[in-house]
Amino acid sequence: MTPVADHLDPYARATWTPAGAADARLPAHAAGWLRERTGLRDVRTPVVHPDVPESALPGDARAALAAIVGDEHVRADARTRLGRSGGLSYLDLLAHRGGRIDVPDAVVEPADPDAVQRVIESCVEHDIAVVPFGGGTSVVGGVKALRGDKAAVIALDLARLDRLVSVDPVSRIAVLQAGVVAPDAERMLAAHGYTLGHFPQSFERATVGGFAATRSSGQASAGYGRFEAMVEGVRVATPRGEWRLGVAPASAAGPDLKQLVVGSEGAFGVITEVALRVRPIPKAQRYEGLVFDGWAAGVAAVRALAQDGGRCSVVRLSDPQETEVGFTLKGGWKITALRRYLRARGVVEPCLLVLGWEGRDKADLAARRRATLRLLSGYVSLGTAAGEAWRHGRFAGPRQRDALMDAGVCVETLETATHWSRLDALRAAVRTALLDSLTTAGRRPIVACHISHSYETGASLYFTVLVPRSDDPVAQWTDAKRAACEAITGLGTISHHHAVGVDHAPYLAEEIGGLGVDVLASVKRELDPTGVLNPGKLVVGRRPAR
Amino acid sequence: MTPVADHLDPYARATWTPAGAADARLPAHAAGWLRERTGLRDVRTPVVHPDVPESALPGDARAALAAIVGDEHVRADARTRLGRSGGLSYLDLLAHRGGRIDVPDAVVEPADPDAVQRVIESCVEHDIAVVPFGGGTSVVGGVKALRGDKAAVIALDLARLDRLVSVDPVSRIAVLQAGVVAPDAERMLAAHGYTLGHFPQSFERATVGGFAATRSSGQASAGYGRFEAMVEGVRVATPRGEWRLGVAPASAAGPDLKQLVVGSEGAFGVITEVALRVRPIPKAQRYEGLVFDGWAAGVAAVRALAQDGGRCSVVRLSDPQETEVGFTLKGGWKITALRRYLRARGVVEPCLLVLGWEGRDKADLAARRRATLRLLSGYVSLGTAAGEAWRHGRFAGPRQRDALMDAGVCVETLETATHWSRLDALRAAVRTALLDSLTTAGRRPIVACHISHSYETGASLYFTVLVPRSDDPVAQWTDAKRAACEAITGLGTISHHHAVGVDHAPYLAEEIGGLGVDVLASVKRELDPTGVLNPGKLVVGRRPAR
Repeated sequence: MTPVADHLDPYARATWTPAGAADARLPAHAAGWLRERTGLRDVRTPVVHPDVPESALPGDARAALAAIVGDEHVRADARTRLGRSGGLSYLDLLAHRGGRIDVPDAVVEPADPDAVQRVIESCVEHDIAVVPFGGGTSVVGGVKALRGDKAAVIALDLARLDRLVSVDPVSRIAVLQAGVVAPDAERMLAAHGYTLGHFPQSFERATVGGFAATRSSGQASAGYGRFEAMVEGVRVATPRGEWRLGVAPASAAGPDLKQLVVGSEGAFGVITEVALRVRPIPKAQRYEGLVFDGWAAGVAAVRALAQDGGRCSVVRLSDPQETEVGFTLKGGWKITALRRYLRARGVVEPCLLVLGWEGRDKADLAARRRATLRLLSGYVSLGTAAGEAWRHGRFAGPRQRDALMDAGVCVETLETATHWSRLDALRAAVRTALLDSLTTAGRRPIVACHISHSYETGASLYFTVLVPRSDDPVAQWTDAKRAACEAITGLGTISHHHAVGVDHAPYLAEEIGGLGVDVLASVKRELDPTGVLNPGKLVVGRRPAR
Repeated sequence: MTPVADHLDPYARATWTPAGAADARLPAHAAGWLRERTGLRDVRTPVVHPDVPESALPGDARAALAAIVGDEHVRADARTRLGRSGGLSYLDLLAHRGGRIDVPDAVVEPADPDAVQRVIESCVEHDIAVVPFGGGTSVVGGVKALRGDKAAVIALDLARLDRLVSVDPVSRIAVLQAGVVAPDAERMLAAHGYTLGHFPQSFERATVGGFAATRSSGQASAGYGRFEAMVEGVRVATPRGEWRLGVAPASAAGPDLKQLVVGSEGAFGVITEVALRVRPIPKAQRYEGLVFDGWAAGVAAVRALAQDGGRCSVVRLSDPQETEVGFTLKGGWKITALRRYLRARGVVEPCLLVLGWEGRDKADLAARRRATLRLLSGYVSLGTAAGEAWRHGRFAGPRQRDALMDAGVCVETLETATHWSRLDALRAAVRTALLDSLTTAGRRPIVACHISHSYETGASLYFTVLVPRSDDPVAQWTDAKRAACEAITGLGTISHHHAVGVDHAPYLAEEIGGLGVDVLASVKRELDPTGVLNPGKLVVGRRPAR
């Protein structure tokens, strides 16, 4: 586990700084390949730090907040505020490089759940918008500092809610405060012999509160399930008081309201504590790479694992395009020799399947691996080297984006999920939409895709886009994203694990119906009558048709 | 699979008829044992058929409903109405034997989801209460014909929604209409090679719509999960129009609204179709009985199976009291010889654990059984005979109640669930509450308990009560049930799989908070503004504190 100390440093996540950009460099061979493959030219845009307006937080509100959290924890300096301005989407990063940006009027840092509750009540009293802020890794505008109809907005920074509250080893439940960053959660749980097993790509920065608020899903979801499956209970600060849920592992005492809080993205309340199912740290792990010939063969393999008891913890299938990018960019591969090796074994369109197993001991792991491989045929094994290469780089994606952007690349991801019988149609529709939108005379986009989460009834699709940046980069990506969302609508979900935020809100009604939007709005009105909580996200104010 | 044809017969479920009472007889040895063990005396109460009042359905409403469903499907005769008056709780059965009973003013039988939608709209127009009625197996008052503030109430009988709509073999999803009774669902799916794997004790009569509306859990939940885990999508008729949910196997597009519909008990809308995950019919099955010495050893075994990969489909642990009842009443056991056999192996307080395995073939089943038994020690095996005896009688409980009631026994069940670390405290508290409430000079109650659903973080507790009936049987059970509910509150959930209905509604606020009740009420107001849907159930009208 990489220890991540920088999440408490308000500057560390300001990705527009040279320090952020130095996190990962683009290897020369990669830059060369991108130029050839996509038409990338050596045009650089200077980084211009965005303007930070004066804080609009009224003096009496500031004093009231300071009385709750302490004067030094109501921060209004430009750098701190800029560090809590939006998340880590491509458009967010563009904004940090010189675009228009929504900056909170102050960053407020309560020490504990009680203080969060009082901050919210104070914001209701002073009619100030509240944007809950955990790791700030949203890629859908979920932590944009929007003020809605309020005169001021604060970022409610949960970094000080960093405690492991309790561990119940009999029930295997741990209660964590919402601001605990995933690596810290793993470190604190490891002292008790436990793991959450939740490893999304945002792992190094994201918080357990954020995971719950957004229905996160980690790379080991085949073994550990989605984050919502781990949530045994929640403690939520709302404008109408504290709300606690979760007395039993399962219940028929009405609808599952925990599942209404999980995924509510700070619009109904601020999650301050999460009770989570934990598991013993596995004693044995193994990662392997297998290559299938073509997408259809790979999908059939992943479906068999999901439906017939694959017993893996990690199942990740790259499509031919992503496999090509991986072989080419990730380094370490003798690409020509590898292709020759695969072709000699009948593989003309390689699709890489990474599998990971975990066991309580080596025998358990071996039994799981046997159960997996019994379901598969027609693959070429690349052994543990390919698996370990994936594992080594699995959190690196976000860090490489700055280097790509420095080189003039538009780089972004988007994701969806659907049932197996529509999976190919969905992939084709999204690919076509993105390619049609982004291809121009001089630009040949790469649209790569993988399945990283599979279920008995379907799977996710995760797309990565690389294309030379246009002169109007915001419009370039906005148009492409809109085209992709329209392609998804009706075929799959608008988000499998990135949540709704600002970006997906326009498509929500198509997915959950006008009635669904009205139901969310009714819950919002009940819990947040004056609308201070995270305005402009998730519930965007469709009024009942009555 | 027992074919159940009588669910379409309106008289078949009128349990007050002699035919109902003849379903199962009480063996002589059981009656003798009950007399000795509980103080039961041979006092019989004559069965008095309850009065059925004149239908209060206004003529214009009747005509409007007949125009939608056909004249012959608006039924107002006394027997049909009585057959749709409440569910199958002990108090319901008492009422059918001569108590006060709420009778619907008509039974309306729409043919399909569209007709259900139009019936609801018509009931809104005529301000008539609607009680959705599936198998009528509620034991918490969920289908009581309450009219709330309306002048009339109809039972919306879903029996004609009996179709398998579609099967998607690639995604392993089947769409079933809500009124399909579980045995019919299994029969129709078996033609495609699939099973739901959902076998609650209500199996012979209950419907898939009812399973979804109440968050049902079946006896094979260790292998197949709770019913809500099978629900991929729902189609719901509401006063504000149809609502469809479920485009993907998992989603982060906001809170999971499907989980708000599942468990909504007809208060938000009437579920008309359910898309369900199905699985191939297992080729191999095996059931065994194991005996542990004492509750603590049995619970430790069940917890190990739930937390460390037991790989069973059925896990059911009886406490010493239930084990004693089972050994004594279920017949076929040479009870004295069995006790001697067990005592010779060190078992002084036997607890029976029934385990069931399913495999795609015999080798798979054997591997699962090995994985299970590796986690267990310190038990005495009773082999497959004990497992098969349980399997044979697993749906018989409800049928035996009439015979027990004929013999003067108060017989009822209740259930809860909690996390492992509180399980013993919860069992002790409920046992004490029931024993204290029901024990008198002449009456020695039996309170038996089992775990039939276990999870990584906790388990359910299911209590069966047998006690000689008092002169005021309604008060006798009402007091005992209240004592049990008060004992549960704060320690566990008020219902693990029986739902809320009328009976548990008073305890809901303690479990989900006043805010939780307000949230349910806000959703109810949004979807059912005039409150026609299932009044008095689940959402009992706590008004917001604002």
